[in-house]
Amino acid sequence: MIKAELVTIGDELIYGHTVDTNAAFIGQKLADIGVDLAYHTTVADNTQRMLNAISHALNRVDVVLTTGGLGPTHDDITKKVICKYFKRQLVFHEDVLAELEQKYAKMGIKMPPLNQNQALLPQGASFLNNKIGSALGLVFDEQGKLFVAMPGVPKEMELMVTDELVPLLKKRIGDEVIYHRRLNTVGIFESAIFEKVKDLVEEKSNITIAFLPAAKGVTIRFTCSGKDVDAAKEQVDKLETRFAERIGEFIYGYDDDTLPKVIGDMLTESGSTLAIAESCTGGYLGKILTDIAGASKYFLGGIVSYSNELKHSLLGVPDELIEKYGAVSEQTAIAMAEGVVKSTGSTYGISITGISGPTGATDDKPIGLTYIGLADANSSFAKEFHFGPVRERNRERAAYYAIDVLRRYIKGLN
Amino acid sequence: MIKAELVTIGDELIYGHTVDTNAAFIGQKLADIGVDLAYHTTVADNTQRMLNAISHALNRVDVVLTTGGLGPTHDDITKKVICKYFKRQLVFHEDVLAELEQKYAKMGIKMPPLNQNQALLPQGASFLNNKIGSALGLVFDEQGKLFVAMPGVPKEMELMVTDELVPLLKKRIGDEVIYHRRLNTVGIFESAIFEKVKDLVEEKSNITIAFLPAAKGVTIRFTCSGKDVDAAKEQVDKLETRFAERIGEFIYGYDDDTLPKVIGDMLTESGSTLAIAESCTGGYLGKILTDIAGASKYFLGGIVSYSNELKHSLLGVPDELIEKYGAVSEQTAIAMAEGVVKSTGSTYGISITGISGPTGATDDKPIGLTYIGLADANSSFAKEFHFGPVRERNRERAAYYAIDVLRRYIKGLN
Repeated sequence: MIKAELVTIGDELIYGHTVDTNAAFIGQKLADIGVDLAYHTTVADNTQRMLNAISHALNRVDVVLTTGGLGPTHDDITKKVICKYFKRQLVFHEDVLAELEQKYAKMGIKMPPLNQNQALLPQGASFLNNKIGSALGLVFDEQGKLFVAMPGVPKEMELMVTDELVPLLKKRIGDEVIYHRRLNTVGIFESAIFEKVKDLVEEKSNITIAFLPAAKGVTIRFTCSGKDVDAAKEQVDKLETRFAERIGEFIYGYDDDTLPKVIGDMLTESGSTLAIAESCTGGYLGKILTDIAGASKYFLGGIVSYSNELKHSLLGVPDELIEKYGAVSEQTAIAMAEGVVKSTGSTYGISITGISGPTGATDDKPIGLTYIGLADANSSFAKEFHFGPVRERNRERAAYYAIDVLRRYIKGLN
Repeated sequence: MIKAELVTIGDELIYGHTVDTNAAFIGQKLADIGVDLAYHTTVADNTQRMLNAISHALNRVDVVLTTGGLGPTHDDITKKVICKYFKRQLVFHEDVLAELEQKYAKMGIKMPPLNQNQALLPQGASFLNNKIGSALGLVFDEQGKLFVAMPGVPKEMELMVTDELVPLLKKRIGDEVIYHRRLNTVGIFESAIFEKVKDLVEEKSNITIAFLPAAKGVTIRFTCSGKDVDAAKEQVDKLETRFAERIGEFIYGYDDDTLPKVIGDMLTESGSTLAIAESCTGGYLGKILTDIAGASKYFLGGIVSYSNELKHSLLGVPDELIEKYGAVSEQTAIAMAEGVVKSTGSTYGISITGISGPTGATDDKPIGLTYIGLADANSSFAKEFHFGPVRERNRERAAYYAIDVLRRYIKGLN
């Protein structure tokens, strides 16, 4: 099995001004094709530390990937460091410059002169195409080791990995495979899952099982390695069946499935539409629903009634009801869901009202208390949740659990 | 200056199923107090690789921090690895167990039996308190090196770093300081900033300057190190003044300031209120506005009119207007903003309508075309933006640029 190391480069990563999403993306892609990412190292834009990290990496693994520092500005020093490490010169590539100028011309923009730097490239490297940016990927394949430097701009790197790096790596891979499957759950905490499947987790087997908790739900990951992907898949299928017997109702999807995508498919299939009424989440639910391209097929929109006045004026929640039960109550949640169905004509309406924190709690209504309402032509109801003390987590949970309330309703689960 | 290495541990990080936000958080906190984070390494839950990473780290820096693997389940092996590396035994701590049981009792929950593991701790370690979780931080201070293991659950780690680790590190730090300042800009691309300040960037000075581009805006970071924080601050002040002369109108804040926080402060100060009408962003704008605790002081809510019908029925945009100019047009954006002011009674209304992609483009309306409208009692207008080809980026930009349109309007900038 090929062992790899990823070196992500950038002051912004070390100082924490940017979250390293590139590492996660590359980690997933490598896992998918069965490359063993043994280490990931991050260093600042610092020649000595970059050299140290690259040389360490080339000593302990077969494939070294870097991201970052390939841009045209003064703090992009990866090319210089590569030249130093591999003892090369920078060479000017006229054809690369011509292509770059063409790319800009197509967008109707004059190329900034600074970008001429992007045609200066280390001698002896081969290149990976960059479909949307100016920095080519650089490849050295020497003494049995593969070294690949890629740009750090996420979208540029992602296209380069998918279209160029993955095919390159696949060629080097033998017949050893790692098969992964993720079961994505919602509506149940990690410890509760664990208690239901403890005996299965502790059984001896060549499938490793991991629990990945997040505010939006717990993912269970099965990993099985071997020579034959079909055999691995079959073993995982069997284990999944046994898990599903215990916690099937909480599993909404697999691998890259997201809850907004899954509900979108369900609504599309039945030709239904959805509208929403959000209070404490302020638009979070609408945001995640519309992360899905094509959501307009089933998502009409909705109302963000952050103030109580708008709950009344836009959703028709009676003032007396809010006064009697409070804005965060089962009754208000139901009235909000009914109100949004009425004003939009959607098949389903879901509503969220809760106390996200850090303020707003009362003696009988703690931070984290959230009601999610659902209405359609036939009925309406609301469910009560106690999420916890942390504002961001409460808002994220509320948005995802709201989708789950609809998922369970459509599937006829309790 | 103290050199540190961070080792983040977890299969989920290596496989890319979780983005490593912990590293960014810790990177920021270390930078703030002038600890030099030289390396950050990530390894899977794998004894051999964890040992390798920890021993490498303890060889090359003074302070080694780890996160992850301290939970009670089978794949949490950090304690075992620590015992192996430092040659210790696990010891049962009755007082730790008693405290844990108390913590659960307070929440009104019976402690899961699995959590008894959390009282088994390596001999000779001292502890960092965990205010909201069950895993204590573990500290070894030996032979001039400091080793600290912390839990990987973000909120638990964050509180531990802020309340316990930072004071611990401050004690070890001499009088060398690193002074950072970030200038947060919006509404201008990196290359355009660079052209305006190129000569300042290329001047010889002991302030290093970095550009950190993101969809929501470009951050410019000044870093100045020395023995005296006031002297460093003064130098940075001077440079900032010179930057502000060129690009001041684009700078909305400093350091941890976010645009939603800044606009919230502006609205609070003037006692104004805001309501929003979102189309392509589907709730994103409302979500980021309500990330700010206390947003209810100025944010009323709004309408997500993802479908054209709702633009008409909820916002009063005339059907003929949409038919004539299209849903993505200056006219519709203005009508949406006016409509939401009318229906909510807010001081300001902002609207977003655009083509996020990947579909929906026409010959004269490319993907990325976005109109942001603004209305108040006196006037209304809309601005046209061309963001680009990537859906997620377009939505993020639209939400942040919409806030910027209001910021500029209130400040009287063009």
